[in-house]
Amino acid sequence: MSTELLDHAPVPLKWVGPVRVTGNVMEGEQLVPLATYEQPLWPSVGRGAKMSMLVPDGIKATLIDERMSRSVLFEADDAGVALKALHEIQAHMHLLQEVVATSSRFARLIDLHAQIAGNLLFLRFELTTGDASGHNMVTLASERLMDFILRRWPELRYESISGNFCSDKKATAVNGILGRGKNVVTELVLPRRTVERWLRSTPEKIAQLNVRKNLIGTMLAGGLRTGNAHYANMLLGFFLATGQDAANIVEGSQGITHAEVRDGDLYFSCTLPNLIVGSVGNGKGLDFIEANLARLGCKEDREPGANARRLAVLCAATVLCGELSLMAAQTNQGELMASHLKLERAAN
Amino acid sequence: MSTELLDHAPVPLKWVGPVRVTGNVMEGEQLVPLATYEQPLWPSVGRGAKMSMLVPDGIKATLIDERMSRSVLFEADDAGVALKALHEIQAHMHLLQEVVATSSRFARLIDLHAQIAGNLLFLRFELTTGDASGHNMVTLASERLMDFILRRWPELRYESISGNFCSDKKATAVNGILGRGKNVVTELVLPRRTVERWLRSTPEKIAQLNVRKNLIGTMLAGGLRTGNAHYANMLLGFFLATGQDAANIVEGSQGITHAEVRDGDLYFSCTLPNLIVGSVGNGKGLDFIEANLARLGCKEDREPGANARRLAVLCAATVLCGELSLMAAQTNQGELMASHLKLERAAN
Amino acid sequence: MSTELLDHAPVPLKWVGPVRVTGNVMEGEQLVPLATYEQPLWPSVGRGAKMSMLVPDGIKATLIDERMSRSVLFEADDAGVALKALHEIQAHMHLLQEVVATSSRFARLIDLHAQIAGNLLFLRFELTTGDASGHNMVTLASERLMDFILRRWPELRYESISGNFCSDKKATAVNGILGRGKNVVTELVLPRRTVERWLRSTPEKIAQLNVRKNLIGTMLAGGLRTGNAHYANMLLGFFLATGQDAANIVEGSQGITHAEVRDGDLYFSCTLPNLIVGSVGNGKGLDFIEANLARLGCKEDREPGANARRLAVLCAATVLCGELSLMAAQTNQGELMASHLKLERAAN
Amino acid sequence: MSTELLDHAPVPLKWVGPVRVTGNVMEGEQLVPLATYEQPLWPSVGRGAKMSMLVPDGIKATLIDERMSRSVLFEADDAGVALKALHEIQAHMHLLQEVVATSSRFARLIDLHAQIAGNLLFLRFELTTGDASGHNMVTLASERLMDFILRRWPELRYESISGNFCSDKKATAVNGILGRGKNVVTELVLPRRTVERWLRSTPEKIAQLNVRKNLIGTMLAGGLRTGNAHYANMLLGFFLATGQDAANIVEGSQGITHAEVRDGDLYFSCTLPNLIVGSVGNGKGLDFIEANLARLGCKEDREPGANARRLAVLCAATVLCGELSLMAAQTNQGELMASHLKLERAAN
Repeated sequence: MSTELLDHAPVPLKWVGPVRVTGNVMEGEQLVPLATYEQPLWPSVGRGAKMSMLVPDGIKATLIDERMSRSVLFEADDAGVALKALHEIQAHMHLLQEVVATSSRFARLIDLHAQIAGNLLFLRFELTTGDASGHNMVTLASERLMDFILRRWPELRYESISGNFCSDKKATAVNGILGRGKNVVTELVLPRRTVERWLRSTPEKIAQLNVRKNLIGTMLAGGLRTGNAHYANMLLGFFLATGQDAANIVEGSQGITHAEVRDGDLYFSCTLPNLIVGSVGNGKGLDFIEANLARLGCKEDREPGANARRLAVLCAATVLCGELSLMAAQTNQGELMASHLKLERAAN
Repeated sequence: MSTELLDHAPVPLKWVGPVRVTGNVMEGEQLVPLATYEQPLWPSVGRGAKMSMLVPDGIKATLIDERMSRSVLFEADDAGVALKALHEIQAHMHLLQEVVATSSRFARLIDLHAQIAGNLLFLRFELTTGDASGHNMVTLASERLMDFILRRWPELRYESISGNFCSDKKATAVNGILGRGKNVVTELVLPRRTVERWLRSTPEKIAQLNVRKNLIGTMLAGGLRTGNAHYANMLLGFFLATGQDAANIVEGSQGITHAEVRDGDLYFSCTLPNLIVGSVGNGKGLDFIEANLARLGCKEDREPGANARRLAVLCAATVLCGELSLMAAQTNQGELMASHLKLERAAN
Repeated sequence: MSTELLDHAPVPLKWVGPVRVTGNVMEGEQLVPLATYEQPLWPSVGRGAKMSMLVPDGIKATLIDERMSRSVLFEADDAGVALKALHEIQAHMHLLQEVVATSSRFARLIDLHAQIAGNLLFLRFELTTGDASGHNMVTLASERLMDFILRRWPELRYESISGNFCSDKKATAVNGILGRGKNVVTELVLPRRTVERWLRSTPEKIAQLNVRKNLIGTMLAGGLRTGNAHYANMLLGFFLATGQDAANIVEGSQGITHAEVRDGDLYFSCTLPNLIVGSVGNGKGLDFIEANLARLGCKEDREPGANARRLAVLCAATVLCGELSLMAAQTNQGELMASHLKLERAAN
Repeated sequence: MSTELLDHAPVPLKWVGPVRVTGNVMEGEQLVPLATYEQPLWPSVGRGAKMSMLVPDGIKATLIDERMSRSVLFEADDAGVALKALHEIQAHMHLLQEVVATSSRFARLIDLHAQIAGNLLFLRFELTTGDASGHNMVTLASERLMDFILRRWPELRYESISGNFCSDKKATAVNGILGRGKNVVTELVLPRRTVERWLRSTPEKIAQLNVRKNLIGTMLAGGLRTGNAHYANMLLGFFLATGQDAANIVEGSQGITHAEVRDGDLYFSCTLPNLIVGSVGNGKGLDFIEANLARLGCKEDREPGANARRLAVLCAATVLCGELSLMAAQTNQGELMASHLKLERAAN
């Protein structure tokens, strides 16, 4: 193997906002960074951020859950053998938890799910991982757990350290149902007049478009646990700017926008059940990443996990800003392309 | 809206390989660039690239299809009205093609698919877009097409320039079935001895793991048109290094690894039906991107589309390299984590 | 193999309605039969049918498309060989059509879709099949087509007469996107007063519940091209009563309910893209089936396919009746269980 | 509403087999009934049943899990309110269990899952339901639970007794991941000579076809947690013959066939995670159903649930018989259609 020319890709980055956020993790205003080759993203998110500043409470962000998972794969002679071993393993959850505790100061095993298909046994270990997104932490823990299990239940044989029931960076349903990463809901209630003046739309139009495009349109496309306009764009920009493993936008973008007219105003929400982000760990050693995280207030001296939760909430609020702005634009014929062209001309 | 501190995210980049490629698009050897925060990706892809060099024909890459799409959304009074208009629109395909031709020198309308749900009409325009990935080209063409259709069929009303039946950067089934981006299959036949010596595995083990993990494991996870170990990682790295809209790894990563034992050797293939890449267009104006594309041989004076096809094929070959290497590693207990740890220590 | 005691399962059947239907296939009123072990289905569908009679135009049914498919599976040495053969096969579509024409008086090949994954070639033949649902007709035609192709393209090898890209009786996305069976949309516009009086609900409540339950709730469950309350119940009852292959409710039930408030009234629609029904063919030889089909007006002397289209439209209208009734019931706390209990007590 | 002509659909029924079954639920041989309009199903299942008799242990059936679910839907002001209520509800699981206990002698609440999307709260109650499939039991329990919750947490408002996160009779992923109905794996190890002589195939051919058709082919079709040839056919026949709610074949048919060559013999398995069957309850009052259940040995005096588990296991073994037979047939060009035609001619 030959490699050469160690270098870097300088992805353009802007800080946008500030975004006003309240909720069970943080309160306050914060500029957010987006690294992207797609320039129109900046003003689009910026417009949504402005909306959050026009409303006293801003965007309400609720962190619902957090965990990281890895599934391992064993082979048995048949399903009966696999089931018997599974029952015994489940009865020794405390021992598994001890094994995990030896693998990292921050890793804690909180749940275990299993699937048996034919003679195959998939175990999905679910851990909290402090401020790290936890990819390596769950892999290391899983390796220790496999060692432990293979010694104690020799009727199980090693097949793989990853059985794809995890699942990492793949379009699947399991993560949304069992949880993987931070599960965050962001919500904004916007007065009708604000929608009309600043978004040149109406609550009715946006709510209707959401049903017809994001819900029904995505269903027709054969969508899987996904109903939104472009979460992936904001996630990519935020992930690259903060040193995340940006390939996790695959599942991160599987979320649902829900909008309704509420007493004449617009209720607009984004549900992001699979935000895999961390404020420490892989990719974080780079100076500019550390600086960006610090500027986001995610390198403070807090209890383990609190910095990562703040990061997740800011990320989810950023997604709402971009989603709201694009949805409003698409309610008006011709607006999307016009703004794209204008921005690109301005850039050249 | 306030923004400040225009800057960039310097994502670490390495050139890996060379990879040996043959097929209906190109023949030759080529180093490939990967920009990523995840360092273990480089030696992993490098090991796969080495495999391609040990075999006379290297990786066989076949480009199956190419097109880009945008779906627009109309409202009608009812499904009957929508259907009548649809039939008339289909009968005027040549006029639609003329409209598209006026929107860009490179855009060509090659197909049209429709969905009717209740009173909603979704039209999916499918275009070839030369060397561009075509996001903006299809949006501009779709805007012209909507204008044309709305004038001629006033019983249809504007709902959205994007109806999510496109679908862009979302976990859906439509792109794999109808096509979006380049559809590329890469294949490698590796002698048993090479597998044993260089990958420390066997054809049987790799083929078996593929069925159990990538096919069955992903199915159990509720996967959608996806069955692979980690396409998303290679795609992200290659996309960032070549100025692509990397959010398209969402659908790009929906592909299928198929491995079999063939006369004692290993047949290993990656099918990537949704590679959305271009050698010109958005994101390509940056100097380092132009340099990278040139080094990849994708800025040559060829017929429109040929540079982009070369780029797609190199990308798909890179995916195979990384996929093969990880799959081989996972057949051995303990290998994955050991190599991760070694690399990360070496990096610090 | 030993079998014994040829017998039958007498599934309770009732004729419900009449249902009033208009559209591009039929106009008129018609009682519809439902065979089911679940008694509450009858009054539920009956209540919906009554709604259709309270409105001058009744249920508007629009047949969007019709076709039947079978996918066959070939093995090649590699994707390049498969692609070359595919291009040649596509260039000989007229010959394939001649082959199909020899297989049945009613079978006509109207389209062909392909998928290449690794060295595997899947061809999806799409046919019209007259008044038959067409399972056997497409299998026979596919067998002839395989014979023809295997002789002419010896680089392709037989793998299977069915490659599951058809797909028959499976939860997949392909049928809704490419079409399989009759694609029917049924719509009803119900005055607010009728909704309030007869359904004890409001247009707003029903439209809101549809978004929250059928669209968002199903998405959260990881639904695939499906968003409805209980299409499967009506389909099963109608299929059993009319001699259909009722296992086709698997894909038949993948449809989308769309409801909106329109000028204060309720717009309610059911989109059923995969209704696989026929008025002749397998299962139709039984006397009671023939009698039921005749009573439905589906044994008339019409052009080939017209009786089957009438049957599909009546089936889809029946689905709307049951769907509307259950959705209205679920807007009221306690109504569903109360009506179930009342009906079951009455039955005992 | 007018209805008339109470009648029944006499679906042809045959007893096939016997099937030999061992495992954690039952041991023994048993004829199994199939009610269907599709005659070729009988000899096909019969051939598989014969295979089970040629092997000392027959089909090994392992019941992995059993539960029934209903999801209810609440509205809150926002996600924060919903989350706070959810945490409190989870902390009162014992009270919920008491509420469920009052609703039925057999209902027992064993787990609770939740989803929050925007301001919507979905609770999925998971119960064991004795020998009943449990549709009505979980609905009644859910109604009581909603009453209880709405009184105690007035910040939650009623939206629906079913939120489609259940999910019943729909193509979704949630049931396979969280469980709904009986989860049964059936396995058969068939000597090579038996495969060759009686199935006119080889272990290699069947295993290869399974990967290419059931796994890869279904993936290409956009399948969701499903990879089999025709589970739906056997399920429909068995469900109709035993008084089940046959619309549950929609999720019942979402299962995975896994076949491998093991020491030269054929390992063949069917994993059916969503078998919703009962030996008492709705549809069981009919005399012929009671007789069929008795003949199946499912009306014995056993602990609650044991009769239903036996029924599930027999159903799953029947599925394996039909699946194995069809898979073997499809390995041979021309065999499928030939056998269909022969059977249909014989029938006329």
